[in-house]
Amino acid sequence: MENGESKRWGFVANQGLNVASTFSIRGTLKMLMDAAAGQRSIIHLGQGDPSVFPCFRTSQIAEDAVADALRSAKFNSYAPPLGILPARRAIAEYLSNDLPYKLSPDDVFLTPGCKQSIDVVVSVLARPGANVLLPRPGFPHYEACAALNHLEVRHFDLLPEKGWEVDLDAVEALADENSVALVIVNPGNPCGNVFNYQHLEKIAETARRLGILVIADEVYGHLTFGSNPFVPMGVFGSTIPVLTFGSLSKRWMVPGWRLGWIVTSDPNGILKKTKGAVPRILGNTKDDFFKKIIDMFTQASEICYESIKSIDCITCPVKPEGSMFIMVKLNISLLEDIKDDTDFCLKLAKEESVIVLPGISVGLKNWLRITFAMELSSLKDAMERVRSFCQRHAKQQ
Amino acid sequence: MENGESKRWGFVANQGLNVASTFSIRGTLKMLMDAAAGQRSIIHLGQGDPSVFPCFRTSQIAEDAVADALRSAKFNSYAPPLGILPARRAIAEYLSNDLPYKLSPDDVFLTPGCKQSIDVVVSVLARPGANVLLPRPGFPHYEACAALNHLEVRHFDLLPEKGWEVDLDAVEALADENSVALVIVNPGNPCGNVFNYQHLEKIAETARRLGILVIADEVYGHLTFGSNPFVPMGVFGSTIPVLTFGSLSKRWMVPGWRLGWIVTSDPNGILKKTKGAVPRILGNTKDDFFKKIIDMFTQASEICYESIKSIDCITCPVKPEGSMFIMVKLNISLLEDIKDDTDFCLKLAKEESVIVLPGISVGLKNWLRITFAMELSSLKDAMERVRSFCQRHAKQQ
Ligand SMILES: Cc1ncc(COP(=O)(O)O)c(C=O)c1O
Ligand SMILES: Cc1ncc(COP(=O)(O)O)c(C=O)c1O
Repeated sequence: MENGESKRWGFVANQGLNVASTFSIRGTLKMLMDAAAGQRSIIHLGQGDPSVFPCFRTSQIAEDAVADALRSAKFNSYAPPLGILPARRAIAEYLSNDLPYKLSPDDVFLTPGCKQSIDVVVSVLARPGANVLLPRPGFPHYEACAALNHLEVRHFDLLPEKGWEVDLDAVEALADENSVALVIVNPGNPCGNVFNYQHLEKIAETARRLGILVIADEVYGHLTFGSNPFVPMGVFGSTIPVLTFGSLSKRWMVPGWRLGWIVTSDPNGILKKTKGAVPRILGNTKDDFFKKIIDMFTQASEICYESIKSIDCITCPVKPEGSMFIMVKLNISLLEDIKDDTDFCLKLAKEESVIVLPGISVGLKNWLRITFAMELSSLKDAMERVRSFCQRHAKQQ
Repeated sequence: MENGESKRWGFVANQGLNVASTFSIRGTLKMLMDAAAGQRSIIHLGQGDPSVFPCFRTSQIAEDAVADALRSAKFNSYAPPLGILPARRAIAEYLSNDLPYKLSPDDVFLTPGCKQSIDVVVSVLARPGANVLLPRPGFPHYEACAALNHLEVRHFDLLPEKGWEVDLDAVEALADENSVALVIVNPGNPCGNVFNYQHLEKIAETARRLGILVIADEVYGHLTFGSNPFVPMGVFGSTIPVLTFGSLSKRWMVPGWRLGWIVTSDPNGILKKTKGAVPRILGNTKDDFFKKIIDMFTQASEICYESIKSIDCITCPVKPEGSMFIMVKLNISLLEDIKDDTDFCLKLAKEESVIVLPGISVGLKNWLRITFAMELSSLKDAMERVRSFCQRHAKQQ
């Protein structure tokens, strides 16, 4: 086009991509995948989507529920803006099981996934001068949304020496009257940690003192396999208002179905009879489905943790107890020709076709985020490749 | 909460609602529904969602396609950000049938519905100082998105005396170097008109001269039943870049499935084999399904149009030829105790339990937007109620 449309047009086509590549894990993983092109089969320890493996197929009950809802032709029309009532009621009931009070359907807003829960809430919280407190390391979609909405980000650390607990002193120091919310991810991505009751209580009390909302990203809720049970932040809903995010993506292994929620902590519960697919998915999925998943994650996290212990240049300060990830510290000084975490991951991709996310992508330089959510044989294979890579690049002593 | 959280909290809970109620058709319809509370069954001529009626149930092929995709467990994982390739390819093929060139899958971006296509594109086009040219009457979601993104709106008229064609002189007068796009809705909501080839060509030439992108909202594409066939704006893609919006919502009667697209007019088509639910829905739906729908709309629009002709205080300058709507002019001077269109609709709701959208909601004061997308018997009943309402409120002569 001669007269300027093409410039505008380029703008339309590129805007989304720029934003994505600056902030997203996806951009980094793509670069590593390109580097890994070669003969060997690629093993992907970079992203947390086990649903691609047949052994992590979702439960029959979830599939049946959706098929029946489809066949009923009752859900073809526009849904109300906050989501259909039976689904909201089912989510309220499901979450109330772990709370000292009952949630009502009015506390629940449906979203097309937890990512979209983040989008909505961040865009609503953003206003001139406001800031949000985010964990480091963290899930970079929060940073991306904050940037898009011109919401200032202030980072507090998660402390590896304290099992990745929140540095509450840092939170106190960072917060001011323009702080609108404090975000926690529990069970943790990328650290695989699970906060205990006492620590959650302290977070709640700190937030109350500071007068800021707590946003609890519990997308990995109930995916725990260590000593700390999963305690939802909503337990402290009477101390501070809590916005809880969740979705079907992780526990049910169906991220492609795009069903998430935003839940408020108002303890008024009038629960009624339910119908539609979501109630059946949330209400009827058999415990043995969840147990099978947890068993596989337990084994996988063990394999991953033990392999890491046996490799010199990487250490894992905290054994993972939840989610699908482990954060591993890189000891660069023990390596011959590796500059930093990104360099490590690029060379690992090229030489061993193993994809691991550099820690810098989640806010920690010279760390690695490894996902263990995959079939055990591939995982073992991958860890062996990491070991030989590290040996090959070790400094001669 | 003592210390400010509750204020912030209220902010979170209300923001979405404020935006919705200021701009949305939904807010107005809700007010009318409340007014209509009473013994009589409510007939809703206010919104275009025929999928709630059994006679407008979607085709078996679409249902089967989704059920099979679900059962394959191949679509449970995260999809790529622009949508899965087989779906994008199927949409490219489907739309290419009506174009003088072939679209490629790379021209197609999936969205969770046409509304979200609007959201994405408006937010991308918005930048300080920019403006967008919107039709009046129109689909108010454009205005809502523009306001959210601080994009200035300039309205050009659709001319009832010219079959609701675009006032191109107005477009020329409104546009300046900060105009980023011109939006058309064809087939038209709320006017039920269908632009002919020559008029679309003139729009394209005007846009080219002005150096602005054309956005063609073709969510009602192929829902035509008059003399003008549906011509997609993309036919003029070599004159000006066109962004076409569409979805499964209207032609397949499944707005609740939330599948839409944004398509660019780049004529490079390398089409390959397809799979997944979308290819089957787009490729295999039988013509008799579409024909049945069009037949019902033809009959319904006739009934609606003829009834209106026989009622004194309302007139319809243009017989509807597409979409699901008809714009009707209110002759307030013939009515005894009716102030304006909103007053008309409120009293009609109260007295007759018939819901009709005041024209002001789509940008035209003292008009009405009536949808005829419903079962014929209800439609006849509704039009009778409108007639007796008008007679009762007519000025004595
Ligand atoms: C911490 C965290 N929040 C949110 C999400 C997004 O989940 P969903 O698939 O429900 O959008 C993820 C996905 O990886 C995540 O790790
Ligand atoms: C002109 C127009 N554009 C877009 C939409 C939204 O369609 P979808 O259901 O695909 O979001 C509608 C729905 O009524 C509409 O009338």
